[in-house]
Amino acid sequence: MNTQALLQETPETETVSERDMANAIRALVMDSVQKANSGHPGMPMGMADVATVLFNRFIKLDPLHPQWPDRDRFVLSAGHGSMLQYALHYLIGYPDMPIEELQRFRQLGAKTAGHPEYGHAQGIEMTTGPLGQGIATAVGMALAERLLVQRFGEDIVDHHTYVIAGDGCLQEGISHEAIDLAGHLRLSKLIVFWDNNSISIDGPTSLSTSMDQLMRFEAAGFDVQEIDGHDHEEIADAIARARSSDRPSLISCRTIIGKGAPNLQGTEKTHGAPLGDSEIAAVRQAIDWPHRPFEVPEEIIETWRDVARRGADERREWCVRMGASPHGDDLRQAVQKQLPASLFEELGAFRREHVEKATKVATRKASEMVLGVINNATDLTIGGSADLTHSNLTVTPGMRDVTPQSFSGRYIHYGIREHGMAAAMNGLALHGGFIPYGGTFLAFADYARGAMRLSALMGQQVIYVMTHDSIGLGEDGPTHQPIEHLAMLRATPGINVFRPADIIETAECWELALKYADRPSVIVLSRQNLAMLRHAHTEENRSSRGAYVLRETAEPRAITLMATGSEVEIACTAADMLRGQYKIPAAVVSMPSWELFEAQTPAYRRSVLAAAPRIGIEAASRLGWDRWIGEKGAFIGMQGFGASAPAPDLYRHFNITPENIVATARKLIN
Amino acid sequence: MNTQALLQETPETETVSERDMANAIRALVMDSVQKANSGHPGMPMGMADVATVLFNRFIKLDPLHPQWPDRDRFVLSAGHGSMLQYALHYLIGYPDMPIEELQRFRQLGAKTAGHPEYGHAQGIEMTTGPLGQGIATAVGMALAERLLVQRFGEDIVDHHTYVIAGDGCLQEGISHEAIDLAGHLRLSKLIVFWDNNSISIDGPTSLSTSMDQLMRFEAAGFDVQEIDGHDHEEIADAIARARSSDRPSLISCRTIIGKGAPNLQGTEKTHGAPLGDSEIAAVRQAIDWPHRPFEVPEEIIETWRDVARRGADERREWCVRMGASPHGDDLRQAVQKQLPASLFEELGAFRREHVEKATKVATRKASEMVLGVINNATDLTIGGSADLTHSNLTVTPGMRDVTPQSFSGRYIHYGIREHGMAAAMNGLALHGGFIPYGGTFLAFADYARGAMRLSALMGQQVIYVMTHDSIGLGEDGPTHQPIEHLAMLRATPGINVFRPADIIETAECWELALKYADRPSVIVLSRQNLAMLRHAHTEENRSSRGAYVLRETAEPRAITLMATGSEVEIACTAADMLRGQYKIPAAVVSMPSWELFEAQTPAYRRSVLAAAPRIGIEAASRLGWDRWIGEKGAFIGMQGFGASAPAPDLYRHFNITPENIVATARKLIN
Repeated sequence: MNTQALLQETPETETVSERDMANAIRALVMDSVQKANSGHPGMPMGMADVATVLFNRFIKLDPLHPQWPDRDRFVLSAGHGSMLQYALHYLIGYPDMPIEELQRFRQLGAKTAGHPEYGHAQGIEMTTGPLGQGIATAVGMALAERLLVQRFGEDIVDHHTYVIAGDGCLQEGISHEAIDLAGHLRLSKLIVFWDNNSISIDGPTSLSTSMDQLMRFEAAGFDVQEIDGHDHEEIADAIARARSSDRPSLISCRTIIGKGAPNLQGTEKTHGAPLGDSEIAAVRQAIDWPHRPFEVPEEIIETWRDVARRGADERREWCVRMGASPHGDDLRQAVQKQLPASLFEELGAFRREHVEKATKVATRKASEMVLGVINNATDLTIGGSADLTHSNLTVTPGMRDVTPQSFSGRYIHYGIREHGMAAAMNGLALHGGFIPYGGTFLAFADYARGAMRLSALMGQQVIYVMTHDSIGLGEDGPTHQPIEHLAMLRATPGINVFRPADIIETAECWELALKYADRPSVIVLSRQNLAMLRHAHTEENRSSRGAYVLRETAEPRAITLMATGSEVEIACTAADMLRGQYKIPAAVVSMPSWELFEAQTPAYRRSVLAAAPRIGIEAASRLGWDRWIGEKGAFIGMQGFGASAPAPDLYRHFNITPENIVATARKLIN
Repeated sequence: MNTQALLQETPETETVSERDMANAIRALVMDSVQKANSGHPGMPMGMADVATVLFNRFIKLDPLHPQWPDRDRFVLSAGHGSMLQYALHYLIGYPDMPIEELQRFRQLGAKTAGHPEYGHAQGIEMTTGPLGQGIATAVGMALAERLLVQRFGEDIVDHHTYVIAGDGCLQEGISHEAIDLAGHLRLSKLIVFWDNNSISIDGPTSLSTSMDQLMRFEAAGFDVQEIDGHDHEEIADAIARARSSDRPSLISCRTIIGKGAPNLQGTEKTHGAPLGDSEIAAVRQAIDWPHRPFEVPEEIIETWRDVARRGADERREWCVRMGASPHGDDLRQAVQKQLPASLFEELGAFRREHVEKATKVATRKASEMVLGVINNATDLTIGGSADLTHSNLTVTPGMRDVTPQSFSGRYIHYGIREHGMAAAMNGLALHGGFIPYGGTFLAFADYARGAMRLSALMGQQVIYVMTHDSIGLGEDGPTHQPIEHLAMLRATPGINVFRPADIIETAECWELALKYADRPSVIVLSRQNLAMLRHAHTEENRSSRGAYVLRETAEPRAITLMATGSEVEIACTAADMLRGQYKIPAAVVSMPSWELFEAQTPAYRRSVLAAAPRIGIEAASRLGWDRWIGEKGAFIGMQGFGASAPAPDLYRHFNITPENIVATARKLIN
């Protein structure tokens, strides 16, 4: 789009001014919040002018084709201002956002949730609310655009990512990780509007910060500007300049929170509560808005709908370019995330080969080998690590780095930024065109929690490669040894947590992570070598059932040993000892994924669990295991934090040994 | 201490130079890592010069009195460089750090864990390893110093907090929250050394960052300097200037990672693996260190021990000043965290009063009322919130804010920085003199996870006030509604998680949080009003047993309803319905703390659980509940994420209702 041309469409020549358009937002916002008797009017009223200029003069989207791959991405990082987004959607004319939806703001089943929820209404590019997630996810979206431009050409990929962020977003640590990465990669089509209203929930932001944000963003490599966020020409000029910069942009918009509310504006009182009937009446006076609640004059609506008309034109032009482009089909396939069928055949062959070889490697190494197959077969995967590449083993031969100078690579050095990495991966997935995976140590899932939860809530296919998954990592000690992390992840709805026991299960779990396109997967991997436990190749992906009998007994089971990951090998040794030394028929169940096991039929679950007493074995917290071991069972695992020592010493120290399993089994049976 | 005087003790006049002293560190580091065959030599060898100048000329500590309240705090934020700290401790002469401990580096039971572990050896001020935690915790330590100066006077409280941070620390988001807070509060006695070696694990930092760190810290309000980290006079001058600044300081130390290793220095190869025998031999040549492994010439040791002698002198002078100070006893008591016995009597009276009144309030409101009693009775508590003061209800009447201008208050506006708040609270607790508490929403425990885990690992009494604890918060929707957070916290070793059901349990849980001085507590509180459920006052703190029978049946129990927090009221209603409508004797068990219940005798636990079928009821993830409900039981709670709607609609929508409990109970019984 030609920025100069847009600027020449001076809105003053219309009968409806941008002031009227912004006031329509203000009125819809305050009335919706009042009707819900809940919500945040302050931010949308304060940012109504910025949003109006952005949408009226610049943004590229087509409400009738909300999934148009080359649309601009608009991210409301300050998600509590959700009514700004809903009002815009109504005014522009998204078919799924009639006025009735605004009237149902924050009610059960409405598209107009308290914070923007991905999947509720078209055009909501992501779920926001936890502060800072929007700006950090937008970095991934902007990165996706750069990568796709490189692959398919600027004629069919050429859009901006716009973010509205509040003081909260900029105070959260994740914003630092995000802007450092964006500045480093020179993501020039990322444009962040900071709603610089000097107010947070507790009161003036001077209560808690003295940060010079412009200097801070400049330090990160951003182009920075500061404007009056209520001056439409300043806003337009700033956006035009930001669009022409070769760096990401921060536009500090000095605004008045709750702008338009004569008695409350500029105070935290407008932030998170309805204005109240009398103040709303005062607003109507102050902004000269005589219309009834939820009524917007037709000419104002019509003017707003021009945004959609412009977008529809732009999309039509894009379709023409797509037809002419040699890469049009490639872009379409990428957006549909079509994996080649041959990939799954190759993964099957990989399993067969390694069963036969009885390959003994750490599962992190197994993961690297599987990734080699995957990355050869498809370009959809885009890898990376939070500065632990050669520990997580996330890079495969031939993968080139993404650098500020070139986006032709597909490996991202995310830096020591687990949270930023997770959010950027969400952005890559949401944008479309990629299946992102990224590595860190499992213990540092802690740092990425905020964004991992959003992967799950938004149902995004993001694959977390989390190595060094227990005390088995050894000497680095308790800070690096996960204890509660499996429970934390398993308790989170909508995540597949995989903890494979050997190279075969690792291949199976990767296959499943690729197949479950509607959710994130966490693949939890060992640092230490693990034996190959499968005796024969099966066509079936046995991990797909979540848990299965790895070692069945000839006679009726006297005991069932259930374990995951590196502890399955220990359980197998214990079962051999029980059989060999005590003639006790002990079965071993491997449980690579609790979620998938939970999803099986009760009959299948019963067949696996069986009636004999059960021992759960996992070098982690017990929490959750009682579901499987039942009242007669026992758990062998961690009771507290780990320690620093060589791994074999730690397993002995914490009594996670075949000998302890044998002794426990014998006690349970007698 | 007079800085000028220190600078005049020019080390050149000694026979042992600071170069020798630094090389002693380098030798101990490389040999210890080699012997362990595991560890990180690069950072300690690179920062040996900075550490030598800091310790030799400036630092104030007495190894024979490692708990001396007025010692300088030294925090190794780049915790993988633990051998730097251990080498320093050995050289200075901490009695618990003989050479044998260095020889046992990273072995089971050693004080010399892979990363510095609080409590393992004297002088380790905190556990580090997860990057960025050190710098953020140090902010709390430096804040504690300012607060104690204000209370007790500069004659007895006057020390610095020194931090060594690496590139990783500065890339992590938590560092942003930390420096924004430190800069805002102008914590002038916080001095951060940045080991600016341009190397991270994956390779040069230019792989992932282009941040201008000096500009960034300046934006946050820091005094910034950049020096050659191997030039001893530049180091000394920079420290002197930092000590005289009225702002916190960043000293960027340009260093060569692995300095002294002729073939590997300056590369990531020195970061996280032993140098190897041949390179170690080359180092010995290069730095002219002919001594055998673990041998340091006596004159070098003696020179190092001067640090301890200076510290002992300084401590003696401090003791004199303590004797003369009107506040000496107060400081001692504060450091011992002595709570007045009257406080617990007042809390008992509070419970009695509100049982009689049958006060019906949200537990967050109850918490505010209890806090009023606590904060009146003791000055040890220091409160705050991550910008949700009037939602968390963490401020009580008469509490004044801590501001950059005055440290006489005791309420901290931590800003929208949950992670920074948690780390700062760790620092306040570790420093001594305070029992910190701070608020946010329970869902945002996600953001604070990294530091909360360290509260637990270090056994620090930090009290987390986490409100808005379920779908009961209503309209803000799924991003704000915790589901997995209780499981996440319960799975973490060493945390007491409290979810009180009414105002009485809230008072009891606060009492317990104050009494458990060796661990963090999380008090999980409702947004919505909850009935008072106790019928009569008890002297006993019933929550102290973790779970107890709130409603017993006259006849033998047919069913037991187990619940926490806001769901206990729902369980009581269901029990009434079961008894009234169906003549089914249903008991209700309230479970405010699983950890404390787990710690009871099996007999007590059996008496509470009893033999009848059990239903667990909690508006959260099921994970962990099977421990209590057993194989015959049922769980009523959340199966996925929440939704945005008024709270009563949500409870109905997710079927967490007395009616569903009744129906489920009847099915279980029949």
